[in-house]
Amino acid sequence: MDQPATEKTTNGITNGDGHENPLIAFMPSGRRGRFPVGTPILQAARSLGVDIDSVCGGRGICGRCQVVVSEGEFAKLGVTSKSDHLSDFSAVEQRYGDKRGLKPGRRLSCSAHVLGDLVIDVPSDSQVHKQVVRKRAEMRTIELDPIITLHYVEVAEPDMHDPTGDLQRLEKALKEQWKLENLDCDIRAIQGLQQALRKGEWKVTVAVHLGKQITAVWPGFNDKVYGLAVDVGSTTIAGHLCDLATGDVVASSGLMNPQIRFGEDLMSRVSYVMMNPGGEVEMTKAVRDALNDMVQAVAKEAGCSIESILECTFVGNPIMHHLLLGINPVELGGAPFALATDGPVQIWATEIDLKIHPNARIYVLPCIAGHVGADTAGVILSESPHESDEMTLIVDVGTNAEIVLGNKHRLLAASSPTGPAFEGAQISCGQRAAPGAIERVRIDRATLEPRFKVIGCDLWSDHPDFKAKTEGLGVTGVCGSGIIECLAEMYLSGIITQDGVVDGAMAAKSPRVQQDGRTFTYLLHDGEPQLKITQNDVRAIQLAKAALYAGARLLMDHLGIDKLDRITLAGAFGSHIDVKYAMVLGMIPDCDLAKVTSAGNAAGTGARIALLNRASRDEIVRVVKQVEKIETAVEPKFQEHFVGAMAIPHKTAPYPHLAKAVNLPAPKAAAPMDEGDGGRRRRRRG
Amino acid sequence: MDQPATEKTTNGITNGDGHENPLIAFMPSGRRGRFPVGTPILQAARSLGVDIDSVCGGRGICGRCQVVVSEGEFAKLGVTSKSDHLSDFSAVEQRYGDKRGLKPGRRLSCSAHVLGDLVIDVPSDSQVHKQVVRKRAEMRTIELDPIITLHYVEVAEPDMHDPTGDLQRLEKALKEQWKLENLDCDIRAIQGLQQALRKGEWKVTVAVHLGKQITAVWPGFNDKVYGLAVDVGSTTIAGHLCDLATGDVVASSGLMNPQIRFGEDLMSRVSYVMMNPGGEVEMTKAVRDALNDMVQAVAKEAGCSIESILECTFVGNPIMHHLLLGINPVELGGAPFALATDGPVQIWATEIDLKIHPNARIYVLPCIAGHVGADTAGVILSESPHESDEMTLIVDVGTNAEIVLGNKHRLLAASSPTGPAFEGAQISCGQRAAPGAIERVRIDRATLEPRFKVIGCDLWSDHPDFKAKTEGLGVTGVCGSGIIECLAEMYLSGIITQDGVVDGAMAAKSPRVQQDGRTFTYLLHDGEPQLKITQNDVRAIQLAKAALYAGARLLMDHLGIDKLDRITLAGAFGSHIDVKYAMVLGMIPDCDLAKVTSAGNAAGTGARIALLNRASRDEIVRVVKQVEKIETAVEPKFQEHFVGAMAIPHKTAPYPHLAKAVNLPAPKAAAPMDEGDGGRRRRRRG
Repeated sequence: MDQPATEKTTNGITNGDGHENPLIAFMPSGRRGRFPVGTPILQAARSLGVDIDSVCGGRGICGRCQVVVSEGEFAKLGVTSKSDHLSDFSAVEQRYGDKRGLKPGRRLSCSAHVLGDLVIDVPSDSQVHKQVVRKRAEMRTIELDPIITLHYVEVAEPDMHDPTGDLQRLEKALKEQWKLENLDCDIRAIQGLQQALRKGEWKVTVAVHLGKQITAVWPGFNDKVYGLAVDVGSTTIAGHLCDLATGDVVASSGLMNPQIRFGEDLMSRVSYVMMNPGGEVEMTKAVRDALNDMVQAVAKEAGCSIESILECTFVGNPIMHHLLLGINPVELGGAPFALATDGPVQIWATEIDLKIHPNARIYVLPCIAGHVGADTAGVILSESPHESDEMTLIVDVGTNAEIVLGNKHRLLAASSPTGPAFEGAQISCGQRAAPGAIERVRIDRATLEPRFKVIGCDLWSDHPDFKAKTEGLGVTGVCGSGIIECLAEMYLSGIITQDGVVDGAMAAKSPRVQQDGRTFTYLLHDGEPQLKITQNDVRAIQLAKAALYAGARLLMDHLGIDKLDRITLAGAFGSHIDVKYAMVLGMIPDCDLAKVTSAGNAAGTGARIALLNRASRDEIVRVVKQVEKIETAVEPKFQEHFVGAMAIPHKTAPYPHLAKAVNLPAPKAAAPMDEGDGGRRRRRRG
Repeated sequence: MDQPATEKTTNGITNGDGHENPLIAFMPSGRRGRFPVGTPILQAARSLGVDIDSVCGGRGICGRCQVVVSEGEFAKLGVTSKSDHLSDFSAVEQRYGDKRGLKPGRRLSCSAHVLGDLVIDVPSDSQVHKQVVRKRAEMRTIELDPIITLHYVEVAEPDMHDPTGDLQRLEKALKEQWKLENLDCDIRAIQGLQQALRKGEWKVTVAVHLGKQITAVWPGFNDKVYGLAVDVGSTTIAGHLCDLATGDVVASSGLMNPQIRFGEDLMSRVSYVMMNPGGEVEMTKAVRDALNDMVQAVAKEAGCSIESILECTFVGNPIMHHLLLGINPVELGGAPFALATDGPVQIWATEIDLKIHPNARIYVLPCIAGHVGADTAGVILSESPHESDEMTLIVDVGTNAEIVLGNKHRLLAASSPTGPAFEGAQISCGQRAAPGAIERVRIDRATLEPRFKVIGCDLWSDHPDFKAKTEGLGVTGVCGSGIIECLAEMYLSGIITQDGVVDGAMAAKSPRVQQDGRTFTYLLHDGEPQLKITQNDVRAIQLAKAALYAGARLLMDHLGIDKLDRITLAGAFGSHIDVKYAMVLGMIPDCDLAKVTSAGNAAGTGARIALLNRASRDEIVRVVKQVEKIETAVEPKFQEHFVGAMAIPHKTAPYPHLAKAVNLPAPKAAAPMDEGDGGRRRRRRG
């Protein structure tokens, strides 16, 4: 591209005739300069460093460089901008409009030339670094900063008098037409290069990875490339296929992690490897096979070929991270929980047997510590606590809760051994979140009668149509969020005491409180199956929530703080839970309830950011290095915090924000007859 | 390693007591400095930049850092060097000596400390950049400058209080113990890392590729890694397995290129691809399978595992280059003969299905032009005409002769379409060089009786034992060098004229000159089979040698020169040929016969240099870019030179050097009866 004849200044620059050249101002950047009549708008924009996209390099093919003239008087700039200060609609624009459609007022900046003063608006969809809008208002937007850039080039034909290779002529064209230099080229791209050049009649589109590596060459023009962001969870693998040019999610898929057949939770999978040599190979194959199924599914949904997927990013907990990468996870099964690597991993898709474009790259976010994985790195990237003034607690609840606390000054991370109770395991009536599972519970304070909702039906159980509507679903169990609500409601209605004892005295008030040996149970649903909350169920949740709270509290100690500005619940569990009930139960410290939110699959969002924004990769590596890693297992205070957190919501910690929102019951002792393990525990403590 | 307390100077530097520190001078570099008593010799050497090898980093394990004390008065240095100025033989040296042997006088410089003034000799086998001796005196030595370096490190164990990945602790150790920074690590090395660290009890040996990439990690100490240099010829694949630490060739292998079943010469293989879609895939597989066979063979011969081969370099003509790399060679089958790439190719061994170390790299030398391949780049690297003052002509004879001409000021390259006559094809009695083939011929000037030697027998055919000794071999045909000698001898004895006509008048002198229709033949061997040199055979060789000469002459024109200082014949054919006969026939221009030599497989030597010397890779890329590529097919003068070069040795060019060495016959016309096509050709020209 030629340099413009003018200075980049608003001072009057004259043309050869002594007349002042027209002024062009670009919005929203405000960059402006004077250019000779006849200068293409794209060229003027480029010379001013205005962010305008182009794949075809100004040939009127891609339509990425569209602009709109802002008409009117611009007193501040001292110009009058008019549509007819642009050259007439050209044959190139006509052809593009006929073929692909051009909205009224839109012009191709590569084809339109300056005739007079202009104020040019660059719509966000014409910018390379466009913003990708995210659903939740409080989150930062993702700025596109593509990992893969596409470049349409015209390549010189071979000449016997100057016998250079096809690749060298392609590189020359990329240098001359795109200022791309010192590129490497994948061998598989070289293998297909000669055919692509000849099929495209010496016009090809080149994909360049991180500005350094030629990874694909297509005959003619091509502007559709995709990337896949994947969160490999122990239970679920969630993936989003994104258009790498727009950042839009064009297809999504969630599927069960087939490793479940080797063990429900992480530690049972590591045990499987320890007891079955080579088991890690089976599990690696299982997860990779599932990823290939996912690729097929999202490509089908988006109507694209799997070969058009050029990039893939991954997050996952350390064990999933290792199994995905073919690293034996046994070291993560016992102290000192050594990761093979805590750095980011950038490799070929073929190196994890992923069948997408043969030259596609994989980027796996860094892990933080032996229990705090790339999923937490993804959460940090998504929630950006390191950019915030607010003291933010982020918890991602799973078999291990991963906990991040801090703000832009310091960031701490730890994991807390909650066990799988929140996922419905270890609970007598517990089940995974699936149709038929109770997910919402309310208990009448006077009668102690419950009502509930099950997944797959919007009606409460006391609605006349509930039975009919749930006939096919059944009421099969209670999922994690249902258990949280049920226990919180049992506490709020006095069925369980602050210490977590099912109060036998309440049996007088309701037949749903029933004796069961030396303890009492609460009958949540009298059907097939009968769903009861036992004293042991309450204990299991108490242990889990105490571990979670103690982990968070430990990090607060390390920072020397007592109050939180914000709490974010990440992960699938976090997005189904009612944050109020979580706080009633004391899973999390007190906080303004308006500032306690669910972030959904924040880890997956982090993977998506790493897919769409080049700079985010350096950012997360830098932040992860700075994160202070706290190992709860070796902190003596953890046990102390754990004991205090067994009570509901807590033995000693005040919950002023919660008390304003919820009518918390006064502390009371259970009926003397209770002699459950909770009772023993009380005696031991004092 | 700590910095020495002294300046790197011969000025008297004193220790804390005011005494002058001892002087240590290292030979052959002459570097010297003063160091405090107790400084390890290796440390002193390192601080002075003296080239001493070490894999174990000064732990007395590898024995690479051996030195010898030069005893005596060194007046120039003003010191007296004595053995007892070194610390006593240490337990570490004793242990090493017991285990691996230490020659008398040798000391481990990492273990021996300075006590007084010393002159230390660093034997060449203790230097990293040691010289690899080559057989021929006129060639430059190869300086070792390893692609792969080995580093023994002790890695910190994981610590729950500082939860870093194993890789990160390894990298820290490499930085602290070897000053290696910003390394990447292959995923397969990460996969095996944890096991290697634990098996080696946190002591491992790391292979680093080009100072940038961790490619292998072995438990404990390992100093044996190998590299393979391969010349992929159309007919033969020749490989040398080298110890990457010493540069020594530890095993060699030559095997037939199995692609021969798709076509004897290059063009017939390209035709096969053109006529059989997918044929290129078959041929690629064939050559890669053969390479894997070669790997097995050389590893077995050297007694090493195929996984200990970490690097492989390749040369080959453009079509072999493309087929090896899985690039369809059809574009090389017709004008404009476009290469897919003329740059060097560095990829994984797995990308060409080569079963050596899973992280091994492949380096393929750059091609020069569509007919001038990576083999010629290898020849240039081996013969170094670009470093010479002498005007050197290098010819590598095959189906196409590849020709290089020049010196350190300019270098030109071309290929000349000789056709396969020199390889024995197109010759009625021709055959490939194999046992039983005639390779040497002498013809009695008076009787015209021939005598010859066959491959596999050292006796001339007129020796009484010849028949008995060749009974198993037979006399099966004439190979390329045999044909050259036979034709040259026929010319020198007057059987063929300067114009290449078999002179019927000679039939009167010997019954071996026989009429055959309108032309005459010469009966070389009257047996089973009968071996005759026909007029057509002479013509085929004339066409081939004229093409070769014309190509060389064309390059001389481009340089504006008439004389050559040196001629080098490369390739298998070049190493079997008698250069004098080649010149008698006029294959090459006149030159001092003492300066006409065979270089053997110079292309393969080039591959070996690229395997052992890191800088040579940049060198050959730079030189190849500067080479002026001449396309003989589009040069009008080529045809003119070709016509003149049909005569023996040449129609007009003088051969003064040759005339001094050989009694060249006076020009004569053949007997008038001759009406062969040579006669027609003469008339046309005349």
